[in-house]
Amino acid sequence: MATITKVSPLAPAAFPKLPVIDGVRFATVEAGVRYQGRTDVMLAVLDPGTSVAGVFTRSATRAAPVLDCQEKIGGASDGPAAILVNSGNANAFTGHYGQASVAAVTQAVADVTGVAVERVFTSSTGVIGEPLAHDRILAQLDALNGALSSDAIEDAARAIMTTDTFPKGASAQVDIDGQRVSIAGIAKGSGMIAPDMATMLVYIFTDAKVEQSALQAMLSSQTDTSFNCITVDSDTSTSDSLLLCATGASGVDATGNAAFAKALNGVMLDLAHQVVRDGEGATKFVEIRVSGAASDADAKVHGLAIANSPLIKTAVAGEDPNWGRVVMAIGKSGAAADRDKLSISFGEILVAENGWVSPNYSEDEAAAYMKGQELVIAVDLGLGDGQSTVWTCDLTHGYIEINADYRS
Amino acid sequence: MATITKVSPLAPAAFPKLPVIDGVRFATVEAGVRYQGRTDVMLAVLDPGTSVAGVFTRSATRAAPVLDCQEKIGGASDGPAAILVNSGNANAFTGHYGQASVAAVTQAVADVTGVAVERVFTSSTGVIGEPLAHDRILAQLDALNGALSSDAIEDAARAIMTTDTFPKGASAQVDIDGQRVSIAGIAKGSGMIAPDMATMLVYIFTDAKVEQSALQAMLSSQTDTSFNCITVDSDTSTSDSLLLCATGASGVDATGNAAFAKALNGVMLDLAHQVVRDGEGATKFVEIRVSGAASDADAKVHGLAIANSPLIKTAVAGEDPNWGRVVMAIGKSGAAADRDKLSISFGEILVAENGWVSPNYSEDEAAAYMKGQELVIAVDLGLGDGQSTVWTCDLTHGYIEINADYRS
Repeated sequence: MATITKVSPLAPAAFPKLPVIDGVRFATVEAGVRYQGRTDVMLAVLDPGTSVAGVFTRSATRAAPVLDCQEKIGGASDGPAAILVNSGNANAFTGHYGQASVAAVTQAVADVTGVAVERVFTSSTGVIGEPLAHDRILAQLDALNGALSSDAIEDAARAIMTTDTFPKGASAQVDIDGQRVSIAGIAKGSGMIAPDMATMLVYIFTDAKVEQSALQAMLSSQTDTSFNCITVDSDTSTSDSLLLCATGASGVDATGNAAFAKALNGVMLDLAHQVVRDGEGATKFVEIRVSGAASDADAKVHGLAIANSPLIKTAVAGEDPNWGRVVMAIGKSGAAADRDKLSISFGEILVAENGWVSPNYSEDEAAAYMKGQELVIAVDLGLGDGQSTVWTCDLTHGYIEINADYRS
Repeated sequence: MATITKVSPLAPAAFPKLPVIDGVRFATVEAGVRYQGRTDVMLAVLDPGTSVAGVFTRSATRAAPVLDCQEKIGGASDGPAAILVNSGNANAFTGHYGQASVAAVTQAVADVTGVAVERVFTSSTGVIGEPLAHDRILAQLDALNGALSSDAIEDAARAIMTTDTFPKGASAQVDIDGQRVSIAGIAKGSGMIAPDMATMLVYIFTDAKVEQSALQAMLSSQTDTSFNCITVDSDTSTSDSLLLCATGASGVDATGNAAFAKALNGVMLDLAHQVVRDGEGATKFVEIRVSGAASDADAKVHGLAIANSPLIKTAVAGEDPNWGRVVMAIGKSGAAADRDKLSISFGEILVAENGWVSPNYSEDEAAAYMKGQELVIAVDLGLGDGQSTVWTCDLTHGYIEINADYRS
């Protein structure tokens, strides 16, 4: 494994102070699954009455824990629930052995915590194709169960990290009918990140009360405009999972509440952006705003073509306002575009309009803008009302360093 | 512009000896379009009776010279023809100015050479979005026309280079009814290379006689299995053009001749592979063989997902037999796959079968294999008869170096 010695320059100053979510407790441990000298397993136990919704990678080669979670989501909803996550090994492409590991871990968690096995969800993240040493996890379950605490969510955020350079957390609080509900979430992910849920694990907890099918609908729709709008390297993981758990401990029903939905979206976007900010080797955070497309779907296709273009990502790394490459990406995306109606801006600087460089464009001004750490590339297609915003980072030597020897 | 000081380690030992093709003459010049101290414009003039076929980028933001060529291909076919190419400036996304440059250059070439303007084809390659200093080209046309020579094809290959580290040429000869016909081609391209004709210019000449519509059909079908099966960085140029010119000077009709088609395919594949071998920063040449897919189209989707994955390309750079990333790429490609029927080989080494690592797999053996310069990654989906082969290179620090400051 590559040794990550430096925190991303785009990282937040510190892990945020997250509110305690009544109804969920966390514990972490050093199980030595692969890493030494750091925690690598986290257990979360949720009180009876918790609704659990989930979205997962669409990869055709999904890992065993993902398949297991997908079977369980939307099923039994009585009694408590549990989430167990290990880092260091993805338990992906491990055939029948992988399924056996999931069965062993989920059953053991059920035995130790008293949670029905149908309500035990697991995730694994790390190297693909190597058997998971699940005995090392089983050996720690009693200790984990004994250490559960309602204010250990930051520890949980740390235990699930792989090539992440900082733990990721976000929260929101919202008042509904005069009563406060809280949302707190954690995430891991820094490479193999692309739409359709890349190597990313996300766990969001709220003490609001939301019925499972409503919670699932809210989660699925908000994923499309948050986690499915970020990309680091266009690669999609076999293991991505996002679980949203509503414990109901506040007694406040947030089903269909717009303020709650907005607060949840804020937490999801914040976590999604933190994943990009920890993009492997990232030195710049880039927002791509596409407007004037023939449809929202077309706008997203253009946005992702720009966000995934190695030539654009290297130009950003080189602080080069190379808008010609933006034209190239729009041209190759496959979505509708008319060269002579295109406008391109870098931040507030109008670079190109009507198919050519703007008469007022100053290369020096644009080059100065590109030296910033937070960049906006805006494209207007001039065709319709479709719009979409996606987020990415630059492509640097750091990405090559991390990924050319991840396993060695 | 980045200074390219080192020839690709994957380059051929020397530019090949190409046969003279009767009916075509070349000249090159230092016009100073952008580069100094090297040739940057080439002119080819073709004798009356030459059939010209072409394939071009499908980018929605095609450059002006491409649009002009596309209008002309398949049109007037009497009289001589001419091809003029400049490097250093792509004349792309240059609006009406770009069209005016093409009009000025094609008319001036027509005036100087006596070729009808409908038979004058141009290409421009280099930086996007800056006006082409076409006056510098016009100033050299008399000199070019006076210098035309039938054995200057290597000079032509050099004049069209941009970030290329070596000139690219290939040839074949084939006997038809006891009479010899020759094919010779040149190409440029090393970045912004992806299927659907990336930043690549290719000119192939033959003294065979082939009627234009038959020549076009042959070219289009052979492009799908040669130039559209290579990728360096998944980016697609606004300027790609391939012209195939049959002068007929041998008097031998090759229309519908299988041996000729095969020889042409060999020249196209050879040039396509040379483009990959000159991939920006490339240190390894990788052949991706996909078999057992549900269809040939599915096999190509899987092959390109593997070939374009930054995580696989960096693993290859790091000489890491990281087959888990191959599983990941297959999973994300969108084409049909069944995890538990997958087999993966590196060269002759069977790595994984039936959804898990092969019992005989030796990581040491695979790691030793990855140290080679020419690699084969083979995937069998176990689903059907579909197959496809695509070619790519690794993703190294060199790519970042070249592209983070191309314009500076």
